[in-house]
Amino acid sequence: MHIVITGAAGLLGKKLVQALLTKGFLTNQRGQLEAIERITAIDIATLEGIVDPRLRSISADISQTSELESSIDARTDSVFHLAAIVSAQAEQDFELGMRINIDAARRMMDRLRHLPQRVRLVTTSSVAVFGGSLPLKVEDSRVWMPQSSYGTQKAVNDLLLADYSRRGFIDGRSLRMPTIVVRPGKPNAAASSFASAIIREPLNGAAANCPVNPLMRLWLMSPARAVQALIHGHELDVKRLDQGRVINLCGLSVTVAEMLASLQRLCGDETASRVSFQPDRAIEDIVNSWPGNFHADYAHRLGFQANASFDEIINEYLAELA
Amino acid sequence: MHIVITGAAGLLGKKLVQALLTKGFLTNQRGQLEAIERITAIDIATLEGIVDPRLRSISADISQTSELESSIDARTDSVFHLAAIVSAQAEQDFELGMRINIDAARRMMDRLRHLPQRVRLVTTSSVAVFGGSLPLKVEDSRVWMPQSSYGTQKAVNDLLLADYSRRGFIDGRSLRMPTIVVRPGKPNAAASSFASAIIREPLNGAAANCPVNPLMRLWLMSPARAVQALIHGHELDVKRLDQGRVINLCGLSVTVAEMLASLQRLCGDETASRVSFQPDRAIEDIVNSWPGNFHADYAHRLGFQANASFDEIINEYLAELA
Ligand SMILES: NC(=O)c1ccc[n+]([C@@H]2O[C@H](COP(=O)([O-])OP(=O)(O)OC[C@H]3O[C@@H](n4cnc5c(N)ncnc54)[C@H](O)[C@@H]3O)[C@@H](O)[C@H]2O)c1
Ligand SMILES: NC(=O)c1ccc[n+]([C@@H]2O[C@H](COP(=O)([O-])OP(=O)(O)OC[C@H]3O[C@@H](n4cnc5c(N)ncnc54)[C@H](O)[C@@H]3O)[C@@H](O)[C@H]2O)c1
Repeated sequence: MHIVITGAAGLLGKKLVQALLTKGFLTNQRGQLEAIERITAIDIATLEGIVDPRLRSISADISQTSELESSIDARTDSVFHLAAIVSAQAEQDFELGMRINIDAARRMMDRLRHLPQRVRLVTTSSVAVFGGSLPLKVEDSRVWMPQSSYGTQKAVNDLLLADYSRRGFIDGRSLRMPTIVVRPGKPNAAASSFASAIIREPLNGAAANCPVNPLMRLWLMSPARAVQALIHGHELDVKRLDQGRVINLCGLSVTVAEMLASLQRLCGDETASRVSFQPDRAIEDIVNSWPGNFHADYAHRLGFQANASFDEIINEYLAELA
Repeated sequence: MHIVITGAAGLLGKKLVQALLTKGFLTNQRGQLEAIERITAIDIATLEGIVDPRLRSISADISQTSELESSIDARTDSVFHLAAIVSAQAEQDFELGMRINIDAARRMMDRLRHLPQRVRLVTTSSVAVFGGSLPLKVEDSRVWMPQSSYGTQKAVNDLLLADYSRRGFIDGRSLRMPTIVVRPGKPNAAASSFASAIIREPLNGAAANCPVNPLMRLWLMSPARAVQALIHGHELDVKRLDQGRVINLCGLSVTVAEMLASLQRLCGDETASRVSFQPDRAIEDIVNSWPGNFHADYAHRLGFQANASFDEIINEYLAELA
């Protein structure tokens, strides 16, 4: 198997590279398990800290056609397309978001379309495609009504991936991810960045601000579960995709207050007391438009798995720190 | 008012040009009624049969940037964007559909975005955005799941129009049209073309084939109602668009058998007997994926109007022939 991963230096990308190198095989288009011979990891940023003879790292902008063309070729079996401009940045820089989140993704699908083999393409979508007046628990049949350019761009990709798959150009699977928590390292430009910061920073002994009402409900998944889902989404037999190519993943529905109670329970009063509550309307407006709970019936039926509790999510992060 | 209409030589475009010239005024962005000074009509085909000093006809391909740029300028108040590659043709020629239905539409929105004034943009979407397992009567909250490239392309446009509007780049309104019946003249490359042919051809004394099961339910609107809806959609105060920029229009839900019974009742046995029933799976598959009935609550609340009966639709066509 030749695998290409874009956005490979990002949170999910790097963990996916590691997980695939460890796993060592994936299902090919003939439905057979096959050893992973090569992973081509593409990112503008440099992927550091992983050395393996099967891994080839390329620092490249996926909106540059030539880089894409030389990385994806007639021997490519599967692509995990994770590179994206995240929510707050796509809101701030409209043209950049359109160029990377729509145009580059489409050019990649067109590249795959012109290859002789049918490539399996796994991408990530987002709950930011939803908005407007929503039920407390969103059904898979719910219309998309993005309230951000990022959500719009993800929804456009979902539509194109489904049509390219229907026409047989690719074998696409778009996984609509919950917000990934706890994100290690620095805050990023996602509107949901605070959801990781209010756990990560107090554990670092630093202060963190919660910019939203603590009763706000979030739809979450840990990085390890997300990587599991990416691999599971890749492995699924196409015959099971009878409700389409776009899958609202299962996740964990918790309020910010419940997250902080879990932090206090597991890590103590002093840690939890490092969180302050200064509202930020811009962040609150974006995140408020995302649903905090989903039925995700299709994903359940397809065997995707959610985290059991927020304690599990904190413990995964603590284990990683150790 | 300076109005631009693309696809102006098409069924709806030509009737819209006539209707606007007759009406003589529209609401401008300041909410005031203003006389229509100029209509720029753009189409690859030539718009024939309308002469008016206010009308300027341009034969041009909207995918050619220069033509668009010179037609839409700082004096443009409103654009009705109707040019499209219709369903069966977009299915047959993927790249043409993408180029006209997505790329040209987006370039137009980008042109509007860079103008100093905020232009009102009215476009048409289609029930082809729906598909998959559907209830008999589709709610406005129903997810889009196109089963054709045309439906995909219309859905992508709807998303972009909504985001461009949310950002204040344009004042967009996308009207999701039922199938327009009775289309005069020759059959076109829409998968729904038969729905007009089974009325039009028998009235011409010619034979027509019905390629679908007569119990199939269709969601219809007459050309006059559609043009009324385009104007109504333009005139709506933006404050009323509280459920978004994409509106599932009201329509008439009838089975093919009911349409033919109406034809027989109004035009006699001999006319109705000119229809044969030879199934065509390709057509049946596409049209079957479109819902035959909608709640259209939002459109009702916004004051859009459906045809009262299929007799009304036939009578409109008969009056036009006379
Ligand atoms: N993390 C979340 O909460 C979440 C939720 C839903 C969806 N997603 C999506 O999942 C994917 C991965 O998320 P993540 O958290 O790992 O994101 P991340 O921001 O950590 O990683 C994205 C990577 O893409 C790279 N990238 C951006 N533009 C690029 C370009 N033009 N060329 C090459 N590389 C480029 C960045 O350098 C970065 O390393 C993204 O598509 C994201 O939108 C993430
Ligand atoms: N008629 C229906 O049943 C129906 C239903 C739903 C939506 N719609 C949509 O409503 C709109 C108008 O429908 P219609 O029935 O009048 O369609 P039509 O086919 O009669 O007219 C479309 C016009 O667009 C023109 N056109 C196509 N490509 C062009 C290009 N590159 N540059 C300039 N002009 C171009 C064609 O020449 C044609 O005159 C279309 O967008 C259509 O998709 C129609």
